[in-house]
Amino acid sequence: MSVVTPEIEMVPASWTRRHLLGLEDLTAGELNLILDTATAFKRETAGCTQKIAKLAGVTMANLFFENSTRTRTSFSLAARRLGADTVDFASSSSSMSKGETVVDTARNIEAMGVNVMVVRHRTPGTPHLLAKSLDCSVINAGDGPHEHPTQGLLDIMTIRESRGDLRGLTVALVGDIAFSRTARSNIWGLKKLGANVILCGPSTLVSKQWEQFGVEVSYHLDEILPRCDVLNLLRIQFERQTTRPFPSVREYASLYAMNAERLKRAKNDVLILAPGPINRGVEVTPDVADGPHSVILDQVTNGLAVRMAVLWLISGKPMRDDG
Amino acid sequence: MSVVTPEIEMVPASWTRRHLLGLEDLTAGELNLILDTATAFKRETAGCTQKIAKLAGVTMANLFFENSTRTRTSFSLAARRLGADTVDFASSSSSMSKGETVVDTARNIEAMGVNVMVVRHRTPGTPHLLAKSLDCSVINAGDGPHEHPTQGLLDIMTIRESRGDLRGLTVALVGDIAFSRTARSNIWGLKKLGANVILCGPSTLVSKQWEQFGVEVSYHLDEILPRCDVLNLLRIQFERQTTRPFPSVREYASLYAMNAERLKRAKNDVLILAPGPINRGVEVTPDVADGPHSVILDQVTNGLAVRMAVLWLISGKPMRDDG
Amino acid sequence: MSVVTPEIEMVPASWTRRHLLGLEDLTAGELNLILDTATAFKRETAGCTQKIAKLAGVTMANLFFENSTRTRTSFSLAARRLGADTVDFASSSSSMSKGETVVDTARNIEAMGVNVMVVRHRTPGTPHLLAKSLDCSVINAGDGPHEHPTQGLLDIMTIRESRGDLRGLTVALVGDIAFSRTARSNIWGLKKLGANVILCGPSTLVSKQWEQFGVEVSYHLDEILPRCDVLNLLRIQFERQTTRPFPSVREYASLYAMNAERLKRAKNDVLILAPGPINRGVEVTPDVADGPHSVILDQVTNGLAVRMAVLWLISGKPMRDDG
Repeated sequence: MSVVTPEIEMVPASWTRRHLLGLEDLTAGELNLILDTATAFKRETAGCTQKIAKLAGVTMANLFFENSTRTRTSFSLAARRLGADTVDFASSSSSMSKGETVVDTARNIEAMGVNVMVVRHRTPGTPHLLAKSLDCSVINAGDGPHEHPTQGLLDIMTIRESRGDLRGLTVALVGDIAFSRTARSNIWGLKKLGANVILCGPSTLVSKQWEQFGVEVSYHLDEILPRCDVLNLLRIQFERQTTRPFPSVREYASLYAMNAERLKRAKNDVLILAPGPINRGVEVTPDVADGPHSVILDQVTNGLAVRMAVLWLISGKPMRDDG
Repeated sequence: MSVVTPEIEMVPASWTRRHLLGLEDLTAGELNLILDTATAFKRETAGCTQKIAKLAGVTMANLFFENSTRTRTSFSLAARRLGADTVDFASSSSSMSKGETVVDTARNIEAMGVNVMVVRHRTPGTPHLLAKSLDCSVINAGDGPHEHPTQGLLDIMTIRESRGDLRGLTVALVGDIAFSRTARSNIWGLKKLGANVILCGPSTLVSKQWEQFGVEVSYHLDEILPRCDVLNLLRIQFERQTTRPFPSVREYASLYAMNAERLKRAKNDVLILAPGPINRGVEVTPDVADGPHSVILDQVTNGLAVRMAVLWLISGKPMRDDG
Repeated sequence: MSVVTPEIEMVPASWTRRHLLGLEDLTAGELNLILDTATAFKRETAGCTQKIAKLAGVTMANLFFENSTRTRTSFSLAARRLGADTVDFASSSSSMSKGETVVDTARNIEAMGVNVMVVRHRTPGTPHLLAKSLDCSVINAGDGPHEHPTQGLLDIMTIRESRGDLRGLTVALVGDIAFSRTARSNIWGLKKLGANVILCGPSTLVSKQWEQFGVEVSYHLDEILPRCDVLNLLRIQFERQTTRPFPSVREYASLYAMNAERLKRAKNDVLILAPGPINRGVEVTPDVADGPHSVILDQVTNGLAVRMAVLWLISGKPMRDDG
């Protein structure tokens, strides 16, 4: 039905990875290749609503040791848009409760003919451990507070879609940096593509140590607001925190929530991103979340595009040993 | 393999809806179109056991905030018989527990390229709210005690399949009317198609107020039994009740259970329907449930047919704004 | 793409069963037909990693009243490799909690156009009951401690793959015999194919009564070790036991764990099997589990092959009444 563009005709020789574990170890060229591929897939499938059977016969397994309907489903739909089969393993119903190790669980799943394993685990490094232990491809779908590369990619794709080029843009990540794997993946990806990154939030959630990586740190949203091209409003990960990092949700909202009043002091074309699920009234007010600056739902659609791109790149041709 | 009949060749111009929220607002013509389409699909697919790929590329999402393996699976199988993709969201594993609103959850799912959303929620009107908030089609799979339109349709299809025409038939809905969305959807559908409807059960579960809608109310099954062409034995929804609406299950069964003795006093060709899961010995005894008057399992198969029809009608051609 | 071999061109006339309920009632000829078919499927699908659409249009339902991600997924992947549709029913989310009988639940699922039902239940005989009550095919995926025929078949296939012929081989089932359906299915299958079977474990878990079936019983692994061609190390089913059948896990491991020291005293070509999930350090040490004698992951892949074979044999041609 659709004419396939050259970008997604065959996996370029420049792509040599077998796994996607994080954005920290990708080059700008690799990041752009993923984003170009995702853009091509989105265009060829009418915004990720149509199928393009480039991975028929491939089986992707979701191995989620932490609950996540959204990310899991996005990966599943991306795989099925490409004609691949999918299968889900959740920790609660898996054999983990019978004393099996993570590696044994994964090896068993691989032995069922799985080609790509999408892994979420609360322990940083678990996907890296599995990548070393398995022959199939591994995609990190979140390892504790460490990395969540496809989330970083979909955020960046959404910015690029609107602005064309990341170079010279100022992107603020606002809120819960300390506990956020999304922040980490964004930082590495944005920096490599030439954006200026500001981390902004309460001092209990944003460490000054990030400055050594060439990132600006601020505790006052109102001070940096006029300079920002993009605001990425991270969720407060209440479920990940052991102590209360700020006095009250109301105080947090008064200092960091993006609302109509703050929007007036921002750039005219400021982009508002927020990885769902959003806490309306906490990090963003409903009028802003649903307003013209918000690209929150574009992020969701781009999540499909990015995952289609990654799945195809890592499994669209015979695997090599260099991943 | 099979020759497709004209009825399901293309969506008739007379069908203009984008959603199925309830039977209360459908016309008799629309009800008959759904039933005719369901009958055609059932015939063309050897009783809903074969595939007919009329919705290839369409993605249907089940968004169930209340547990229901049966209805959810019936929708999934109906979609897959039509070649559509399906994806499930359950409340327990969804982002609802992270403080997200229902509309945000649904918008996120829609942004993943979903074309049809099947919604069950304990709050009446939730599917209507989502229909207003989304661009995709919405099917109500049960909103609290309000409506469950495809259940009403499958009950009516099962009666029509046996009797040809609903007009003039006397259909008794027996049991838990107060808490039953199945009862409501049946009442609206049956009345529009010309059947006489009797509501029968303990006074705590059947309100006299229904009489204003042209429905007969009775508290004594034995009195109305000889007049009934159809008995639809509704489940006692123990899980929905906050107080005990009758002294004991034994007393309920003695007054309202359909059993061999009562069957003798019913019409020779009386039809016994019961939306599963049935409580054997409560609303129906095993001999009657498994006897020649029972069409309980036909209801299940017709559930597939009706859902195939609805899915195809609302998504088988470009959407309009009039839904 | 691949040339289909004669073995899986059409279901042989010698196969007349509609159900697979256990290995106890199969003939050696039937066992070999399943194993030959599984071997052909494995070869034709590059080790069960490719699709072979021999069951397009067939719907397989998993009806699991006991949790099992692994077996359930293996059946699902086997079905999908054959082009069949799959649907899962789990007890926790099913209508069982609403008071429905097992037979009613299964009949309802069947009425949704299901052709093959894969059943796991903690009560022995449940699949047999359903086979009598349903028109569709039933596969026993574990009925309490009774049988788990596809597990027995995959163990036997793995041995056959390595040794060619079972006749004359000595196979020890080590560990939890009393509570193990895997043991039972292995015993029947191995005996019919001419292997010598030794049951070995603590006296609390291995009954002398098995000797009447022509099986050797031993309480001392070290005594039988030098004679064994195959060791199948069964999991200690802690979750199935009501009393502690041995003083401590450490004591069990010291007497029955397969480790490097014991491996030295075994035959040079001894095969180590273990149905996962394995308890590393209990029934097998990591060096042995991951060593050259271990065929543990081959078992997993052969599980797919065996299930593809069984699904195809029982549903690959019109059903007869002789099942």
